[in-house]
Amino acid sequence: MKKHIVLLPGDGIGKEVISSAKDVLQAIAEEYNHSFNFETHEIGGAAIDQYGTPLPDSTVDACKQADAVLLGAVGGPKWDQNPSHLRPERGLLGIRKALDLYANLRPIKGFKNLLHASPLKEEVVAGSDLLIVRELTGGLYFGTPSERRDNGNSVVDTLTYTRKEIERIVDKGFQAAQQRSGRLTSVDKANVLESSKMWREVVEEKKAQYPDVVVDHVLVDAAAMKLITNPTQFDVIVTENLFGDILSDEASVLTGSIGMLPSASLREDGVGLYEPVHGSAPDIAGKGIANPCAMILSAAMMLRYSFDFNTEAKVIEDAVQSVLDAGYHTGDLQIEEGRQVGTAEMTKLIVDYI
Amino acid sequence: MKKHIVLLPGDGIGKEVISSAKDVLQAIAEEYNHSFNFETHEIGGAAIDQYGTPLPDSTVDACKQADAVLLGAVGGPKWDQNPSHLRPERGLLGIRKALDLYANLRPIKGFKNLLHASPLKEEVVAGSDLLIVRELTGGLYFGTPSERRDNGNSVVDTLTYTRKEIERIVDKGFQAAQQRSGRLTSVDKANVLESSKMWREVVEEKKAQYPDVVVDHVLVDAAAMKLITNPTQFDVIVTENLFGDILSDEASVLTGSIGMLPSASLREDGVGLYEPVHGSAPDIAGKGIANPCAMILSAAMMLRYSFDFNTEAKVIEDAVQSVLDAGYHTGDLQIEEGRQVGTAEMTKLIVDYI
Ligand SMILES: CC(C)[C@H](C(=O)O)[C@@H](O)C(=O)O
Ligand SMILES: CC(C)[C@H](C(=O)O)[C@@H](O)C(=O)O
Repeated sequence: MKKHIVLLPGDGIGKEVISSAKDVLQAIAEEYNHSFNFETHEIGGAAIDQYGTPLPDSTVDACKQADAVLLGAVGGPKWDQNPSHLRPERGLLGIRKALDLYANLRPIKGFKNLLHASPLKEEVVAGSDLLIVRELTGGLYFGTPSERRDNGNSVVDTLTYTRKEIERIVDKGFQAAQQRSGRLTSVDKANVLESSKMWREVVEEKKAQYPDVVVDHVLVDAAAMKLITNPTQFDVIVTENLFGDILSDEASVLTGSIGMLPSASLREDGVGLYEPVHGSAPDIAGKGIANPCAMILSAAMMLRYSFDFNTEAKVIEDAVQSVLDAGYHTGDLQIEEGRQVGTAEMTKLIVDYI
Repeated sequence: MKKHIVLLPGDGIGKEVISSAKDVLQAIAEEYNHSFNFETHEIGGAAIDQYGTPLPDSTVDACKQADAVLLGAVGGPKWDQNPSHLRPERGLLGIRKALDLYANLRPIKGFKNLLHASPLKEEVVAGSDLLIVRELTGGLYFGTPSERRDNGNSVVDTLTYTRKEIERIVDKGFQAAQQRSGRLTSVDKANVLESSKMWREVVEEKKAQYPDVVVDHVLVDAAAMKLITNPTQFDVIVTENLFGDILSDEASVLTGSIGMLPSASLREDGVGLYEPVHGSAPDIAGKGIANPCAMILSAAMMLRYSFDFNTEAKVIEDAVQSVLDAGYHTGDLQIEEGRQVGTAEMTKLIVDYI
């Protein structure tokens, strides 16, 4: 099959790990007789430097033509003092909105020989395998008004959702639970927020459509506790944008290897943007030591969710697992009696397996 | 000195632990020649049952006359299905607002012989000692509009702050840092929210007034990660209402003994409401096994923050520590070769020390 993929390397180690993902995808294309066509565009700091904006129209247009988008990472100290419209993150928020990528999927699963690096006790974290489904284009990050008032003496941000926006992300949560172990935890603050009350109503209404899914409701503050005290109790968590931002980052450190975590941001028709959970890591950029696994596993998610290439996705995941099992790891990880390698060698090992 | 204290036992184990705190305060009064006058009022579910509202005017009026308020806990399954204005939590939100208790202080410090119960590895959590200063009467929990729109097809909540509201809580954060080790972490989402940008500006402006305090800014998603990976890096954290709600609950499970954690909610003039971090625990209510320590330590905070009785506060804290050191603990805790006791015996041990 022919697929058109836009690469957005972004900043820092983004460029290095994107090139790893491309190598892996080319290996998959050869092995499985696909034809992947790649086109590279700028976003974030790199785009600010080159075009004076974190999200040039040319990038948006290219992404709109693509079957899927791979993004490396955005941001760095160079742009930290910029005014908000000239910050790298604006590029990320902008492309999510422009492509209507409302469903952010963040699977968090420990790798056995990396769990020792978890801040949690091994008996607490062992066996945890969860998926956070975060609403990504609504809520407090996008609502208006978001402005100063009274001559700068007060400020307002706005959390808005339409019922439709809540319904479609809640559906995603239920569907993900169906494909996994059938348990869905909806997180809200329904004891205080009107938006959360509506959220909870929608979840209750949808239950009937998914009789095979067991649902419970947890308040966001309690969820922040339970993720730490008992992460294995969760299967799929569905929640709104801000809560999902905080909880998914919290969850990302539980297994001790954030450099391994992929993510997907999907539109209703399956078009998606895939990016590692880790950031642009400016301190190690350009040194050839970045861990490419999260980006490569994000490419695997792309094959599964945007192209329905399930076998191919599985092969990549198996490749990463078996390279780790053989003891190879980048400098951000530690494996007992393992062998530390750089980005290029790690990528080559994964490609060779494929 | 004469002090007038209002007791709000609330629901569940609230009644039991309030009575422990009263015993301890009476012991302090005798020992240090104070006169504490107690008056009990209803709040939460108990108030709903008796007065048809979670916060009767009589309770508000009594609290307004008091030098300080002790609150047990509110909530329980009995009232979980109630419409929002008839939920126990409304009483809590209401009394905070009615008394203008804008500064919520949540100290989190591990007890050596309880740390083994932490979900974190001992080497990660050992030595952590932090104070979260949460804004408590503004932001998303109180902003208007908070309502359904378009015939119920959309919903809005509003996050508002005046500059003054931000300034006074940021001042609290700086002052707390001055009294501790001089480090302040301000948590916001300034890369996205306008309110967070104003928050960050205020913190930057205030720096000059507190030259002895070292300040850094951390995004809320990153803070949720760092609390787990490296809790000892924090001293005082200051943040707005919703972020503080989530982060303080997250932090409360790090040390493995939430049944030991007190909190204070203060008004500008020092009047305050003091309550344990744990909830009403309806499952163990009335059995005489609840851990009274968090409530007793909340009473110690009252002596310190509302009455400036620092010696007396310290005596209570030492009493709790030494009873634990002697191996006594309630059923929610475990101490190797320790002795499990009930609420009454635990309280008596603490009173005897005083
Ligand atoms: C960079 C920022 C705007 C973004 C967000 O909060 O959505 C990031 O934290 C994320 O989670 O992808
Ligand atoms: C009960 C609820 C309204 C309250 C809050 O979120 O403020 C509670 O979670 C707390 O943190 O004291």
